[in-house]
Amino acid sequence: MQEPVREFVTDMEPAEFRQFGHQIVDWIADYLAHPEQFPVLSQVAPGDIKGQLPTAAPLAGEGMDAILADFERIIVPGITHWNHPAFYAYFAITGSAPGILGEMLAAALNVNGMLWRTSPSATELEQVVLDWLRQMLGLPTSFWGIITDTASVSSMTALAAAREYLDLGIRRQGMAGRPDLPHLRVYISDQTHNSVEKGAILIGVGQENVVKIATDDQFRMRPDLLEAAIQADIAAGYRPMAVTATVGTTSTTSIDPVPQIAQVCQKYGVWLHVDGAYAASAAVIPEWRGILAGVEQADSFVFNPHKWLFTPVDCSVLYCQRPDVLKRAFQLSLDILSNREDDVVTNFMDYGVQLGRRFRALKLWFVLRYYGQQGLAERLAQHIQMAQDFAAWVDASPDWERLAPTPFSTVCFRAQPAALAQDEAGLETLNIALEERINATGRAFLSHTRLGGRYALRLAIGHIRTTPAHIAGVWDLLNRELDLLLERE
Amino acid sequence: MQEPVREFVTDMEPAEFRQFGHQIVDWIADYLAHPEQFPVLSQVAPGDIKGQLPTAAPLAGEGMDAILADFERIIVPGITHWNHPAFYAYFAITGSAPGILGEMLAAALNVNGMLWRTSPSATELEQVVLDWLRQMLGLPTSFWGIITDTASVSSMTALAAAREYLDLGIRRQGMAGRPDLPHLRVYISDQTHNSVEKGAILIGVGQENVVKIATDDQFRMRPDLLEAAIQADIAAGYRPMAVTATVGTTSTTSIDPVPQIAQVCQKYGVWLHVDGAYAASAAVIPEWRGILAGVEQADSFVFNPHKWLFTPVDCSVLYCQRPDVLKRAFQLSLDILSNREDDVVTNFMDYGVQLGRRFRALKLWFVLRYYGQQGLAERLAQHIQMAQDFAAWVDASPDWERLAPTPFSTVCFRAQPAALAQDEAGLETLNIALEERINATGRAFLSHTRLGGRYALRLAIGHIRTTPAHIAGVWDLLNRELDLLLERE
Repeated sequence: MQEPVREFVTDMEPAEFRQFGHQIVDWIADYLAHPEQFPVLSQVAPGDIKGQLPTAAPLAGEGMDAILADFERIIVPGITHWNHPAFYAYFAITGSAPGILGEMLAAALNVNGMLWRTSPSATELEQVVLDWLRQMLGLPTSFWGIITDTASVSSMTALAAAREYLDLGIRRQGMAGRPDLPHLRVYISDQTHNSVEKGAILIGVGQENVVKIATDDQFRMRPDLLEAAIQADIAAGYRPMAVTATVGTTSTTSIDPVPQIAQVCQKYGVWLHVDGAYAASAAVIPEWRGILAGVEQADSFVFNPHKWLFTPVDCSVLYCQRPDVLKRAFQLSLDILSNREDDVVTNFMDYGVQLGRRFRALKLWFVLRYYGQQGLAERLAQHIQMAQDFAAWVDASPDWERLAPTPFSTVCFRAQPAALAQDEAGLETLNIALEERINATGRAFLSHTRLGGRYALRLAIGHIRTTPAHIAGVWDLLNRELDLLLERE
Repeated sequence: MQEPVREFVTDMEPAEFRQFGHQIVDWIADYLAHPEQFPVLSQVAPGDIKGQLPTAAPLAGEGMDAILADFERIIVPGITHWNHPAFYAYFAITGSAPGILGEMLAAALNVNGMLWRTSPSATELEQVVLDWLRQMLGLPTSFWGIITDTASVSSMTALAAAREYLDLGIRRQGMAGRPDLPHLRVYISDQTHNSVEKGAILIGVGQENVVKIATDDQFRMRPDLLEAAIQADIAAGYRPMAVTATVGTTSTTSIDPVPQIAQVCQKYGVWLHVDGAYAASAAVIPEWRGILAGVEQADSFVFNPHKWLFTPVDCSVLYCQRPDVLKRAFQLSLDILSNREDDVVTNFMDYGVQLGRRFRALKLWFVLRYYGQQGLAERLAQHIQMAQDFAAWVDASPDWERLAPTPFSTVCFRAQPAALAQDEAGLETLNIALEERINATGRAFLSHTRLGGRYALRLAIGHIRTTPAHIAGVWDLLNRELDLLLERE
């Protein structure tokens, strides 16, 4: 009996790709034209999506038609629309149109930029756009940059470099079982993003050795307390390893006094890492460059174009003034990846934990060129202006209270009607109810934080499609829902 | 004087997005139809790309026309074409058409799936497709999964969980300055991917505490030597923390004897991590499931759909039988991210270092559905068959020598013409020259490794467009270039 001839199979035919590619582009164009047709916060309940999906992968392949139909029918209702102009939660972000176009090409090229030779354009474009960004932020040429996926990884990488910089033989000998090693100490403020603490735990510093410095009444790290903490630690035989200062903290977007913190770091020889993941974008506005004062003295600095610079997730940038230390911390040779050009090129895999690297510089290049420095600055200034307007409305209203300064485009506030003045428990219940009601409307999505024990609502403006009409709309919505809750209508 | 009215600016108009989106889809369709129009390995010299780009970002925005023209003119020549069917270096990968379509939608939705509520579909689809994959690999239901960006991060995450599992208070107290802590030891083989070593350095284990167990003549870790090393370490007062076994090592794709290694791990209570980043895909072929024998006893297991399962970079999967330990290692509460549904949903940010998470499950879902289990198995079987054919040609030729078994789709071999028999230095020079000449043709891209001191060429088959004609082509090319080098023509 003859064996059946098996046909050789490869990928989808180009014509089919073309057909569905066009269909998807049209879907995206419609989606971006009317993101407001969807509720911002997905209104499904836990398990709703899972329950609609088969419990096993199909044996035979299915058509793209069926897949796209299910995408619309099952997946889209379970999407929280980060593209909705009334997305004000966490930090609003934007995968802008040029950024999406860049991602399409990056996905098609499917480059792994681990080595220079695995796509010279990926490495060199990354070097070029990070130098563009460096100039736009007013940072010195000594700032060497690398793109990572997230600020969490950027900060963790910075901490690993800070540890290597101590020159305690940790790369070779590790940290455990070494009576010669002191406790390593990392200083943050009570407002620092928890990714720094997570990174410190991961690299073996330990949560107890992450010292939270108190902040002032504007949520800024107090340099005097930082210095006192460092002195006390040194006296106790501990080794200060790194300080993280933040320009634009997560809850209130407060700005730590980086110049003074840098002075303390310099005095005690401690690595300074600055987290500007969200707010550093504002330095693209020429008049706002001052927010990065002192950053020129930082050893490392993280900034996320995927937050407030219109670049699709993921794209974080880590700048470092000591790339040699980064390389010492991370480089590991491997026969299979060594090449003759290694001495004259940058192989980005040598500067971080990840070997695999998507071609993220491409979308960033598209975004920077399409809008230009001025176009970006203009959009960022609009966001700041809208936040200032909203803050002024809050300040002017007897029903509302602002709970923190508003240095950028994020407002922390709460309802505080006269009826509940002094009733902290009542105010918390009211504001939680208000947040849930607003989010349940699907017309705006707010998040919350806790400031000095008080439950605060957060309005974070950062989507490219958000206009003054949207801000007026959410203000109306807040007031209307408050009236309903207070049964004032 | 009146302030000039500033026009409010938002994003690109939908019509413009539509126009350029269609243009890009057509470009991609043409590109995928004829990737062979380009040299596989980019032929540019260091600095060539950088030298063509402006030294600063434009002030005013530019048109997409200009950007796309520069993409073709400047960027594409500096691309090493991972889509070329004659890409045989490292591990060949494929961003297949359905995967690219999925990435387009993911970029447009621009979801950050850090929390369940930030897009329930992102979390639940991830859970569903990882369960599909688990079944396809024949793993038990106790395998809990999470998508990460890279195998480097997956393995580092597994090591962090292994450290937490020791219950030595490292999360809280850290590893330094603790006389109570023993040296922590991690066991790999001399063939293990260096990402495991990198991860061990990062989390503070130290390079000296990464014990490289020798392999047998087929490059497989020797379980007897592993057990001896663990016993010696225990006797020395060290604490064995984790063993990494590999199914499909990086150089030769050898398969460590996981069942025996698992026995050793069980006996000494050591965390077993299995790295199947490349080869686990083969288990999708029903008759090949046996390659994962023993993995059901692993504590953690990494597998990369972006390697040999036609999913665009990046997409790595970490399975873990102890998700509670993972969570203990990584969860950190943050006021701004806490929600009422937290007790009944999975928030994937609690299980790894990264807070930000792209919607990677979408492309994986597209790939699994479009090809189906059978379509995937068929393509993988083709790759394995082509490698076996090539290996047979090598074995049958007096000019060539195979340097390792070929369990999957990767062949390690070298030229070994009679004229140079026994001349190891001469053989190395010859094979280096051969590799450079092949790669300089732009018609195939091979990489190399070192096996028992010998310079080996590697032919890794894994691109969806690679056909038997391509394999015959590279075999011809190798023989022709060898003749030229030996001046036999």
